[in-house]
Amino acid sequence: MNLKVDLNCDLGESFGRYKLGFDEEIMPHITSANIACGFHAGDPNIMRKTVKLAIKNNVEIGSHPGLPDLLGFGRRWIEVEKEDIVNYMLYQMGALDAFIKAEGGKMLHVKPHGALYNKAAVNEEVSEAIIEAIEKYNPELILVGLAKSKMIEVSEKHKIKYAIEAFADRAYMSDGSLAPRSMKGSVITNINEIIERAINMLKYGKVKTIDGKEIEIGKVTTICIHGDTPGAVEIASNLKKKLIESGIEVTKMVNIV
Amino acid sequence: MNLKVDLNCDLGESFGRYKLGFDEEIMPHITSANIACGFHAGDPNIMRKTVKLAIKNNVEIGSHPGLPDLLGFGRRWIEVEKEDIVNYMLYQMGALDAFIKAEGGKMLHVKPHGALYNKAAVNEEVSEAIIEAIEKYNPELILVGLAKSKMIEVSEKHKIKYAIEAFADRAYMSDGSLAPRSMKGSVITNINEIIERAINMLKYGKVKTIDGKEIEIGKVTTICIHGDTPGAVEIASNLKKKLIESGIEVTKMVNIV
Amino acid sequence: MNLKVDLNCDLGESFGRYKLGFDEEIMPHITSANIACGFHAGDPNIMRKTVKLAIKNNVEIGSHPGLPDLLGFGRRWIEVEKEDIVNYMLYQMGALDAFIKAEGGKMLHVKPHGALYNKAAVNEEVSEAIIEAIEKYNPELILVGLAKSKMIEVSEKHKIKYAIEAFADRAYMSDGSLAPRSMKGSVITNINEIIERAINMLKYGKVKTIDGKEIEIGKVTTICIHGDTPGAVEIASNLKKKLIESGIEVTKMVNIV
Amino acid sequence: MNLKVDLNCDLGESFGRYKLGFDEEIMPHITSANIACGFHAGDPNIMRKTVKLAIKNNVEIGSHPGLPDLLGFGRRWIEVEKEDIVNYMLYQMGALDAFIKAEGGKMLHVKPHGALYNKAAVNEEVSEAIIEAIEKYNPELILVGLAKSKMIEVSEKHKIKYAIEAFADRAYMSDGSLAPRSMKGSVITNINEIIERAINMLKYGKVKTIDGKEIEIGKVTTICIHGDTPGAVEIASNLKKKLIESGIEVTKMVNIV
Repeated sequence: MNLKVDLNCDLGESFGRYKLGFDEEIMPHITSANIACGFHAGDPNIMRKTVKLAIKNNVEIGSHPGLPDLLGFGRRWIEVEKEDIVNYMLYQMGALDAFIKAEGGKMLHVKPHGALYNKAAVNEEVSEAIIEAIEKYNPELILVGLAKSKMIEVSEKHKIKYAIEAFADRAYMSDGSLAPRSMKGSVITNINEIIERAINMLKYGKVKTIDGKEIEIGKVTTICIHGDTPGAVEIASNLKKKLIESGIEVTKMVNIV
Repeated sequence: MNLKVDLNCDLGESFGRYKLGFDEEIMPHITSANIACGFHAGDPNIMRKTVKLAIKNNVEIGSHPGLPDLLGFGRRWIEVEKEDIVNYMLYQMGALDAFIKAEGGKMLHVKPHGALYNKAAVNEEVSEAIIEAIEKYNPELILVGLAKSKMIEVSEKHKIKYAIEAFADRAYMSDGSLAPRSMKGSVITNINEIIERAINMLKYGKVKTIDGKEIEIGKVTTICIHGDTPGAVEIASNLKKKLIESGIEVTKMVNIV
Repeated sequence: MNLKVDLNCDLGESFGRYKLGFDEEIMPHITSANIACGFHAGDPNIMRKTVKLAIKNNVEIGSHPGLPDLLGFGRRWIEVEKEDIVNYMLYQMGALDAFIKAEGGKMLHVKPHGALYNKAAVNEEVSEAIIEAIEKYNPELILVGLAKSKMIEVSEKHKIKYAIEAFADRAYMSDGSLAPRSMKGSVITNINEIIERAINMLKYGKVKTIDGKEIEIGKVTTICIHGDTPGAVEIASNLKKKLIESGIEVTKMVNIV
Repeated sequence: MNLKVDLNCDLGESFGRYKLGFDEEIMPHITSANIACGFHAGDPNIMRKTVKLAIKNNVEIGSHPGLPDLLGFGRRWIEVEKEDIVNYMLYQMGALDAFIKAEGGKMLHVKPHGALYNKAAVNEEVSEAIIEAIEKYNPELILVGLAKSKMIEVSEKHKIKYAIEAFADRAYMSDGSLAPRSMKGSVITNINEIIERAINMLKYGKVKTIDGKEIEIGKVTTICIHGDTPGAVEIASNLKKKLIESGIEVTKMVNIV
């Protein structure tokens, strides 16, 4: 079904003295990097370094804005107003863009992080806020959203560019949402299972749910790889290899959308 | 001596529930606004609102980046590395620029805040870091620095645009630096005295020091008005009026530099 | 109905350079101070100063812990775990107690702030977390909770001391909850209306709702006065005077519970 | 020279999603834990967990307060006032004590962190501020300070309890201060060298400097082990074993001071 797919990874999630993820090791195996912008993770030095690394590896750069909650890593929903979301997004996209500009690169996509991403997947107003920020900042940016989600639906309505994302290493609920991290079995670590799921998604548009059913996921533009799990680098390099062997071209999302 | 002068004010220094300064009232009486960027003051909503206000009042917009110290309002020096300064500056300029872009304006100058400004006034490496950030981000930006300071000296060397700033409401030391805020008499609140000092600076290039001497201050491009003191609005409106009456044109720094 | 009532106020809500509220002016007119602990407002210097001020004015000291969200002033619910609440409470109570200890006072009550207070009013698990923190830290502390709320219900079950709070300057919904701040008419500023509502609550156990009905509120231990509204000081001093004139003793909650 | 020594380690330095150090693994090999208090590292959940772990391992608990600079991990000096230091210390000691109280333990010592520790080693006013906080909070607490430092000198003058600390894994300058981390060779990782240095310190009161000389370090109460270096656990377990074999009793500092 898909002849082309992007492999994206959330990177630049270290903070000050705290190191998170295997950014340098994973960069050669992906095609798009979503870089944290300092609200839920990342800091100015890390952002600069990660932008440089992406450019060096010819990886597409996107911003990865989150809620202002370093303590909760942006994974806890905060009852913000629509105006807050628009402005938090603008702030973070602008901040990251300064480093991209300084290093001679280009921001091509945006992927909201954690609770912002998950809330937008089911909430129209949150999706509208995210898209308003993109339209105000740079209407050429590609918005990365969960397959079958409200965010994709609202993106279509607004006629902005979007990439449909699926998670090969996260379990799905039968409604197409991701199983919460607190649920047993929500994160898949077996490398063969991850590869098999990815190929099943791309070739047949299907994914197995946490309770053993299979659901339609539709067309997928990009697959997310987690960069901070043990074995992340091995998963990324193997996944890329196997996809290519299966006849799927692995390329930046800007070449697909 | 000066036929033209800019009146600048540090604005957008509120944060969340905390209100600081009389932004709306003072905006009509100034020609340039230095807008806080969220590290020492300001937040995304405040930044957006302040940018809108500046555009509405036809006031020149500049960024006002500071050290990451909300608790200390950016007034305490932190022993940062050169790399930190460059990246803190890039981050904050970019973040503010997103709001300026969203509102259809243009960033024309940069004025470092508090401890960053004061340290740069006497320290070459800090000045170099600030200028490196500007050169990387947008070499057309005007850097606002204290008259006779190291920052102006380094700006000349780098051939970047700069505006020479003087403070009509702050007492000077005999070496041309500002008297520290902790010193009695360091902040001048008498409106007539402020106006007299401003005119003396602009017409004769001179300023009285805290110990009663008079020093040469040289050419001045812009005078800083504090927006958070009682009487700030009255001071601003009177100063502007009196300067015009004295035959000095009050205009944006972009028209002077 | 009530012969005694406590007047409490949330104080110490300034932060660094940001001043909020009229702490010094309002202190003489209240009997209990709820002091912010640095998560949603307050900082170490402010906390120390506010503790001193309370002791000087013979005002009962309580801690006023909130969610870690300075930007949102602790008014936005964050999807925290039970463990988070317990530990955020412990941290903040301990921090405040250090200043109370240093100044020779005693912490006698706890009043959760903002979103934590409002969520606990309707949510059993959040109430349980708050009470667990109190039981672990100091089971003698009085918990201040909204009249008719889940928090009072859970306090009774746990047999901890509690004070029943009513708001004379906030509008009520017909279910006994506070009208959200975003709702028109939710904050009452007319001084006579506030006094009348307070006396109605204390004498007859009733309060008018935002849609004009009257509901039973039951016994009330303490009335909250907001210290940051214009006229706050006048409201406090008048309310105290009128209550005394009405034959109601105004005294610390420790003397009532 | 020393018949008894304490082995201390800075622990609880993780934050939210960010893990730092090998707390669980190292705890069995030390006698005192200095627990971060949330300003430069640590958060309420981590603090609680670390306190529990220390109690379980019968390790003496101390607070490890730092400057409010998570981004800089408390390693950058900030130009704070004396009052700030006193109050930052009180806040953090109190916060940690809440968890110790909740878990049924006892705080017995205080060791300032990073820039606060290093500044106090050479600055009398900073030492005075630290000691003022201890005297106000709990004059029975043992203050841990660098051997031969200003902090020890001021502690003697104030007649508070103190523990003299030496670093077996950090290079010394010829004036007895620690070589800055930015200096090559400042951190020693070779396990045999660390053990040899420790024994040399304890038996002969001497330490080799970074430029190859040997200086007198005097009596040492406690040796600091870094918990976040590769091999930290092995270093700790070996050091303890070798010290015991050398006839030195390894015991909590409360048993020595």
